[in-house]
Amino acid sequence: MTQVELPQSDTLRTQQRCQILDLDAFSRSEIEAMLDTADSMKEILSRDMKQVPVLRGKTVVHLFHDAHPQTRLSFELAAHALSAHVMTFTPEGGQLSEHSTFVNTVRVLQSLGVDVLVVCHAQAGTPYLAARHFQGALINAGDGFHADPSQALLDLYTIRDKLGQVEQLKVVLVGDILHSRVARSNLWGLTRMGAHITLCAPATLLGPARFWQATWPGVTVTSDLDVALAGADVVMLLPLEQARLASGLLPSLREYRRCFTLTSRHLDRLGEHVLILHSGPLNDTTDILSDIVASGRSVIHEQVANGVAVRMAMLYRLAGNCDDSLRSA
Amino acid sequence: MTQVELPQSDTLRTQQRCQILDLDAFSRSEIEAMLDTADSMKEILSRDMKQVPVLRGKTVVHLFHDAHPQTRLSFELAAHALSAHVMTFTPEGGQLSEHSTFVNTVRVLQSLGVDVLVVCHAQAGTPYLAARHFQGALINAGDGFHADPSQALLDLYTIRDKLGQVEQLKVVLVGDILHSRVARSNLWGLTRMGAHITLCAPATLLGPARFWQATWPGVTVTSDLDVALAGADVVMLLPLEQARLASGLLPSLREYRRCFTLTSRHLDRLGEHVLILHSGPLNDTTDILSDIVASGRSVIHEQVANGVAVRMAMLYRLAGNCDDSLRSA
Amino acid sequence: MTQVELPQSDTLRTQQRCQILDLDAFSRSEIEAMLDTADSMKEILSRDMKQVPVLRGKTVVHLFHDAHPQTRLSFELAAHALSAHVMTFTPEGGQLSEHSTFVNTVRVLQSLGVDVLVVCHAQAGTPYLAARHFQGALINAGDGFHADPSQALLDLYTIRDKLGQVEQLKVVLVGDILHSRVARSNLWGLTRMGAHITLCAPATLLGPARFWQATWPGVTVTSDLDVALAGADVVMLLPLEQARLASGLLPSLREYRRCFTLTSRHLDRLGEHVLILHSGPLNDTTDILSDIVASGRSVIHEQVANGVAVRMAMLYRLAGNCDDSLRSA
Repeated sequence: MTQVELPQSDTLRTQQRCQILDLDAFSRSEIEAMLDTADSMKEILSRDMKQVPVLRGKTVVHLFHDAHPQTRLSFELAAHALSAHVMTFTPEGGQLSEHSTFVNTVRVLQSLGVDVLVVCHAQAGTPYLAARHFQGALINAGDGFHADPSQALLDLYTIRDKLGQVEQLKVVLVGDILHSRVARSNLWGLTRMGAHITLCAPATLLGPARFWQATWPGVTVTSDLDVALAGADVVMLLPLEQARLASGLLPSLREYRRCFTLTSRHLDRLGEHVLILHSGPLNDTTDILSDIVASGRSVIHEQVANGVAVRMAMLYRLAGNCDDSLRSA
Repeated sequence: MTQVELPQSDTLRTQQRCQILDLDAFSRSEIEAMLDTADSMKEILSRDMKQVPVLRGKTVVHLFHDAHPQTRLSFELAAHALSAHVMTFTPEGGQLSEHSTFVNTVRVLQSLGVDVLVVCHAQAGTPYLAARHFQGALINAGDGFHADPSQALLDLYTIRDKLGQVEQLKVVLVGDILHSRVARSNLWGLTRMGAHITLCAPATLLGPARFWQATWPGVTVTSDLDVALAGADVVMLLPLEQARLASGLLPSLREYRRCFTLTSRHLDRLGEHVLILHSGPLNDTTDILSDIVASGRSVIHEQVANGVAVRMAMLYRLAGNCDDSLRSA
Repeated sequence: MTQVELPQSDTLRTQQRCQILDLDAFSRSEIEAMLDTADSMKEILSRDMKQVPVLRGKTVVHLFHDAHPQTRLSFELAAHALSAHVMTFTPEGGQLSEHSTFVNTVRVLQSLGVDVLVVCHAQAGTPYLAARHFQGALINAGDGFHADPSQALLDLYTIRDKLGQVEQLKVVLVGDILHSRVARSNLWGLTRMGAHITLCAPATLLGPARFWQATWPGVTVTSDLDVALAGADVVMLLPLEQARLASGLLPSLREYRRCFTLTSRHLDRLGEHVLILHSGPLNDTTDILSDIVASGRSVIHEQVANGVAVRMAMLYRLAGNCDDSLRSA
C-alpha cells in the first residue's frame, strides 16, 4: 500500500473536535485546515490504488433516515477509501426494533462499539440529540432545513480550488433558500471565510432581510436575479423541490422559472471567471438549463468529485482525534 | 496486523461441530470453551485496531427472514472483525427469485461457494431445514419461539464475566417466557452450566409447570414476582411484544405492568451483587424502568457489547472447524 | 496472500475492451481467452483463501433495476473475490434522487469516481445508454429480452469444462426462447464457437424460423421436443415465467408441461454424455423434473458455481484493460 501523504497528526490533533454538527463551530483556520486535508485526500483519489488504511478496523454506521442516496454514496465511498467498514441503515430498516426510539438506537450502536456515526435526518436537530448519547465521532450529514456541513465544505473547497480563495468574493445563492440546509451551512462557512453573500429568491422562499441579517449581518437580500448577479464571482443554485409547489408557496412553476432559472442570457453578462455551483440533485429545467451545465463555468461534476475528498477529510480528522483522546484515557 | 492470541487450534478442533442450531447439543465443557474464546475476542475488540484476519477471503451470508436489525448488526460486526465478507438478505429481498423456495435459496448459496450461513427466521425449525442442504458452517440466529443460541451464550458470558461463575446461581427469568426463544436456549445453557432456574410470568405467558419440567426437571415456576426474586443472583427480563396484547393473552398492559415490571422497590430487596439482564429491544415502561437501566446492577449495555465477542467466537470456532475437516477431506 | 496465477497481462491487454454489452462483439478467440481466464479464477475459488488483490481499491457499483438476486449475488461474490469494494442499488433505492433520470445517475457515478458499473435493467438497451455516459468499465448484467452475456459465457464455460469443446456440438434450447435474453446471448456465443443450434418451443414462444435465421443463419427451429432432442449433446432449458401464462401466450400450463417439460423418458433416449443446463431460477415442475436435476447429467449447480468464476474473469479483464489505458493516458 502506498505511503499516505497527509498533514502531520500534530497539526490535526490540535483540534480536539469529535463531532461535526455545523460550521458555526468552525473558525476560519479550522475550515482551512479541513480544506487542506481534503487536498491530500483528493491526491489519494487520483491514484491508481485509491485506498489508504487509516481507518482500517473502524466501523462507520450511516443512519440515513432522510433518503439522500447521492450523499450516502459519497460518504460510503469516502469511508471505504479510508478502509473503514461501513454499515448503512436507511429509512425502511432504520430503527433497531419496533419499540426502539432513535435514542435507544444510538445507545445500542455505542454499546456495539461503532466508531463513527453519520446521521442524516429529516428533522432538524436530530444529530445533536444523537451526539448527546454517542461518545465516538459523529457527523451531521444533513438535518431538516438546519445544516449540511459536508455540502458547505465541498462548496468552499470547490470555490477555493477553482478561484484560489474565498475571501472577498461575491457569492450569490439563488433558489429555495428558506428551506435549504445547504444555504444555512454555507452562510456560516462563507462568512467565516470572508466572502460577500447575496441571497436571491421569491419572497415566499426567502423571508424578510432581517431574518437572515440577525444571524449573518453582512448578507444582502433581493428577489431580483439581475440585481443579485451583478458583479458575482460565484453563483450557487439551490434546487426547488416539488413539495414547495404543493405547499402553495409559489404561484406557478412557470412564473418561478421565468424569474429564477439561470439562462445563457444571464451567463453572457457575467465575467469569464464566474463559477456556477449546484447543490444536490439536478433539476434540468427548473434550476438551471442544460447548456449552462455543459458550459465551462459549471463545476457541478467537480462538486460531486470533491465531495468524496471533503468527506474523507472529515472522517479522517474526526476519527483520528477521537482515537487519540481514547488512547490517552 | 497484530498477532491474534487465541486458544490453540488443537483445543478448538476437538469439537468437530460445523453447525450451531441450539445449546441442547452443547456439553458444559463445550459451552465453557466457547466462552473462553469469546474472552479472547473481547480482548481483540478492545484494541485500537479491532480486526483480525482469521476469516479473510471467507463469505458469510445472513439470511434474515425475521427482522432483527440489532442481532443482524451484531453478527455483521462480528464477521467483519474477523475480516470475513458479509452479505445480508432481509425479508424484502430474501428469496433468490420469485419461484424459488427457501431450500433452493440455500442450495444456490451452497453452489455459489458461501462459507458460513447465519439464518434467522420467524418459523421454528427453518435453520434445521437449511442445515440439511448446506455443507458449510451454519448458525441459527433465532427461529420462531424455538431457539436463540447466540443470545443465550452472550447471557451466560455476561453472567460469568460479572459474577465469576454460573454454577449454583439462582437465575430468574421474568416476562413472556412462553413465546421466548431466548428463554428456551437459556434453559438449555443455564442447566448445563449448573444454575438454579426460576420462571416467572402470568399463567397465560407461562403455561403449567410440567410443560417446562418435562424437559428441564429442576426448574421452578411461579406467577408471583416477589416469590421468584427471593434469593436471586441474576434477573433476566424478557420483552413483552405488542402481539401478546393483541392476541388477548393479557387482560391489560396496566395489569401486567403492576405485577411483572421490575421497579426499584424490587431492587431494594435484592442483594448488592444481583445482575439485571435484558434480552433484545428495550421497552422502557413495560419490562423495566429507566432508573433500573441506569443503576449499576443493569448490564444491558454490557450484553450488547459482549454479543459481538460471543458471535465472533461462534464464527471463529465454526469456520475454523469446517475448514479443517474440508482440508483433510 | 498467495501469488495469483493468471494469464500474462500482455495476452489480456491485446483486447482493449472496456465494456461488455453483448457477445455479438466477441470473436471466437476473445471468448476463448475469457473462458481461459475463468479457468484461472476457478482455481482461485478452490483455494482456502478465495481472494486475490487485483481490484483492491476499486469500486464496483451494481445498478440492478431488474430484480435478479442470484445474478447480483454472483457478481458481488466475484467482485469481492477480486478485493473490489461493492455497492449495490436495487429497484427500490435505485435512482439517486426523486428528480434524477437514469442518465444523471450514471453521470453522478462517473463524477464520484466509480471504476466499474454493472447494469441490469428490465428495459432492453439501458446498459448501452449507460455506456454512452460512463468512461469506466461497464458490464451488461442483463437487459430486457435482449442480452445476458455473463450467463451465456458461464454456459459456454460449463459446456467446454464438461465436454472439452463447444465446436460441432448439437445444442438444443428448450423453453420460452422468444422472451429470453439468455437465449439471444447464447445464440451469439454458440455460433461464434461453432456449435449447431436447435431452438424448441411452442410457436407462440418461438416465432417463425426466419425471425432467428435472419441473424443466425444456421439455426434449426422446431416445436417438437423429440425431433429437437435427437442427437443432442447439450440441452439448455429456459425458465417459463408466470407472466407468459398471464399474457395468454399459452393455452394452459398443463399443455406446456406435457409437450416441453424434460422428463426421464427423454433422458433415456439421449446419449450418456448429454449435459442438461438450466438458466436461472429453478422451476421444479415446469421446466424440468427433480429426478433430472438430481441425475448425473444435470450441471445446474456447476453452472451456479462457474458463474462466479466467469464474472471474476469479466471484471478482471475489463478493469485491467481500462486501468491500463488510463495509465498510459
